Amino acid sequence: MIAAQYIGNKSFQIVEGSSIPPKAGEVRLNVGYVGICGTDMHIYHGVMDQRVNPPATIGHEISGVVAELGAGVEGFAVGDNVVVRPLDYCGQCPACEAGHSHVCQNLKFMGIDTPGAFQNSWTVKARTLHKLPANVSLQTGALVEPLAVACHDIRRANLKSGEKAVVIGGGPIGQLVALVAKSVGAEVIISEVNDARREFSSQYDIATVNPLQQDLPAYVKDWTNDKGADVVFEVSGVQPAIDVMTQIAAVRGRICMVAIHANAPQVDLFQFFWKELELVGARVYEREDFDMAIDLIATGKADLAPFISSVNSLDEIGSAFANIDNNPTGMKALVSCQSEKNKD
Amino acid sequence: MIAAQYIGNKSFQIVEGSSIPPKAGEVRLNVGYVGICGTDMHIYHGVMDQRVNPPATIGHEISGVVAELGAGVEGFAVGDNVVVRPLDYCGQCPACEAGHSHVCQNLKFMGIDTPGAFQNSWTVKARTLHKLPANVSLQTGALVEPLAVACHDIRRANLKSGEKAVVIGGGPIGQLVALVAKSVGAEVIISEVNDARREFSSQYDIATVNPLQQDLPAYVKDWTNDKGADVVFEVSGVQPAIDVMTQIAAVRGRICMVAIHANAPQVDLFQFFWKELELVGARVYEREDFDMAIDLIATGKADLAPFISSVNSLDEIGSAFANIDNNPTGMKALVSCQSEKNKD
Ligand SMILES: [Zn+2]
Ligand SMILES: [Zn+2]
Ligand SMILES: [Zn+2]
Ligand SMILES: [Zn+2]
Repeated sequence: MIAAQYIGNKSFQIVEGSSIPPKAGEVRLNVGYVGICGTDMHIYHGVMDQRVNPPATIGHEISGVVAELGAGVEGFAVGDNVVVRPLDYCGQCPACEAGHSHVCQNLKFMGIDTPGAFQNSWTVKARTLHKLPANVSLQTGALVEPLAVACHDIRRANLKSGEKAVVIGGGPIGQLVALVAKSVGAEVIISEVNDARREFSSQYDIATVNPLQQDLPAYVKDWTNDKGADVVFEVSGVQPAIDVMTQIAAVRGRICMVAIHANAPQVDLFQFFWKELELVGARVYEREDFDMAIDLIATGKADLAPFISSVNSLDEIGSAFANIDNNPTGMKALVSCQSEKNKD
Repeated sequence: MIAAQYIGNKSFQIVEGSSIPPKAGEVRLNVGYVGICGTDMHIYHGVMDQRVNPPATIGHEISGVVAELGAGVEGFAVGDNVVVRPLDYCGQCPACEAGHSHVCQNLKFMGIDTPGAFQNSWTVKARTLHKLPANVSLQTGALVEPLAVACHDIRRANLKSGEKAVVIGGGPIGQLVALVAKSVGAEVIISEVNDARREFSSQYDIATVNPLQQDLPAYVKDWTNDKGADVVFEVSGVQPAIDVMTQIAAVRGRICMVAIHANAPQVDLFQFFWKELELVGARVYEREDFDMAIDLIATGKADLAPFISSVNSLDEIGSAFANIDNNPTGMKALVSCQSEKNKD
C-alpha cells in the first residue's frame, strides 16, 4: 500500500508500506476519495505540528470500499461502499457517559490525533462506518463528512421550517449549512465578502449580502419585518462577525458558533441579556448527522456535485494542497486514492 | 396621597398629590412595601437619568393591597394582597407575537420607563397583578419580584434535579438563584469574594468559594468528578467571571447570563465550540416565574425573611438609599409606604 505523509513545512512524501490487517471490531478499507479540509490546510501550514507530530498521514473526509473484516464485525460486507465518521472516543469520560461521545473529553480525531485517510488502505473501527446507498458515488461520498458538520450545526441550532437564518461566511461549511437550512424548510441568506463565493451561492438560489457594501443589520431588519434572524450561524471566525451576530439576531434568537475563535473576541453580552439570545457551540457531528447527510444526498435534497472543484491522484497531493493555497475560493478539492480502481 | 420622587444627584423629594382613579382594566393599590434594587441604586447614582427623566417616582419590587377597581377588572377584589409584575408590553411587536412579551421590543419597565411604586397609592394595569396567598406577608411579598428573576434564570437554564450549578456572584440575585436552584433539587455553590455575602449563604447551607483565595476551576473539577458544572449562572458582571465561566462548565454545560455587561467583554468562544457550551440570556420574568416565586414562598421552600436587612418609612427613603451606599453588603432594604396601616 502507499500513504501520503505530511512531513512539515507544506510538504508531503509518498511512502510504501504494508496494509494493516483489521483486528477484532475493525475493518480495512480501500480508500476511495479524500477531501481536503480547512483543518488539513492549517496542518499543511505548520500551525498544528505539535498536535499532528509529523511525519503523519492526515485526511478525514473519506469514502471507501470495505476490503477486509476483522473478527466479530457485523453489518458490513467486503465491497460495501462506506464513509468514516472519524471520531475515536474513550467511552468512559463524563461526556461519553452523558451520551455526548462526539465531544468526548479524551476525543481522538482520526486524521489529526491518529493516522488519517490519505493512503490507499486504511484500517478503522467498524463503529466509525456508515454505508453509502448505491446511488451515492464515492466522489460525493467524500463530502458526507463536511455535510454532516452542517447537519450538526442545523440540529444544534434547532432550526425549523419557516424560520429565517443568516449564515455569516460563505466558505464550504457556510455553503453547506445554508443548503441544509433550506432542506429543513428555513429561509436563508449568506453574508460573504468574496465575489466568487457569493456567485457560488447563486446557483443554489441562495441570496447573499456583501457586508462591506451593504448594511447587513438593515438588510436583515427589512427582510424579517423588524424581527431579526431566528438563527445566525457564525462560520467566518472574524471579529466583525461577532459584532454583527448579536445585532441581527431576533429576540430569543439562537446563534450557532461553528467557527473557531482562537483569540477570545469581544462579545456584546448585553444583547444576550437584553434580547434573551442563546449561543450554542457546535463541534463535529453525531451518528445522526452522518445519517442525515447521507439521506440528503441520496434523496437528491442536497446536490453536492458543484462543490467538487478538483480531483487529484494521491501522488499529486502536494500540488492539490498548493492549488488550494493559490485559489482559496475553490470549494472542495478531492484526492483520489485508488488510481486504477474504484473510480466512479 | 404622597409619592417619593427621585430628583437627580442622589436626592429624593416627597410630594403630595391626588391618587389616580383606575381606568378600565386598571387597579389602584395601596402600596405596602417596596424593595430597593440594584437598578434603583444605579438610578440613584445618576447613570440612568436620561432614561428615567427626573423628577420621577421609581421602584418596582412591590407588594400592596387592592384599593379600587377600574371597569371590567375581574378576579380581584378590594382588600386583596397582591404583587405587581412591572412589565408594560406593547402586545404587537414580533417578540410579543412570538409569545415573549416580557422581552417586548417596546417594553416599558414600570418604575424606570413609567412611574413606579415609591408612593402610597399606585394605579396599574390589572394584568400586571398576582395575588398573594394569606400566609405570605406584605413584607415578604415585596421580595417576590427579585425571587421571580431567580426563577426565570433557573427556567432559562433548564436546571434540573441532580445537576450541579455554580453561581458566580453572591449578591441578592445570586443568593436567590442559589435558593431556587436548591428548591428544584440541584446542588449549588456560590463563588463570591465578599466575606459577609459568603457568611449569608452559610445560613442556607450553601457552600461558597472565595475565588481570590481558592482555585475555582480546580474546586469545580474536584466537586464534579472531572465533569465540570452542568450550569453556571453569571451574576457578577465582571471580566474574571467571564474568564472562568467557560472553564468551569461541563461539556454541553449551560451558562446563564444574568448580569449586565455594558462593555463587551472578551469571551473564550473557542470553549463554546470545543465543549459545545450554551449561553442563555435571561431578562426579567414571565407570568410563570411570578407564580413559581409565590409558590416557593407560600410553601416554605424559600424562607426569605433573612434577606430583609432594613425597613424604612417612605419619608425616610433618602436615608434608606444612602444606607445601602454605605453598607453595600446588606441584602434587601424595604421601604414601607403605609406608615399606619397595612403593616404586617
Ligand atoms: Zn474537515
Ligand atoms: Zn470520552
Ligand atoms: Zn429589581
Ligand atoms: Zn411588544
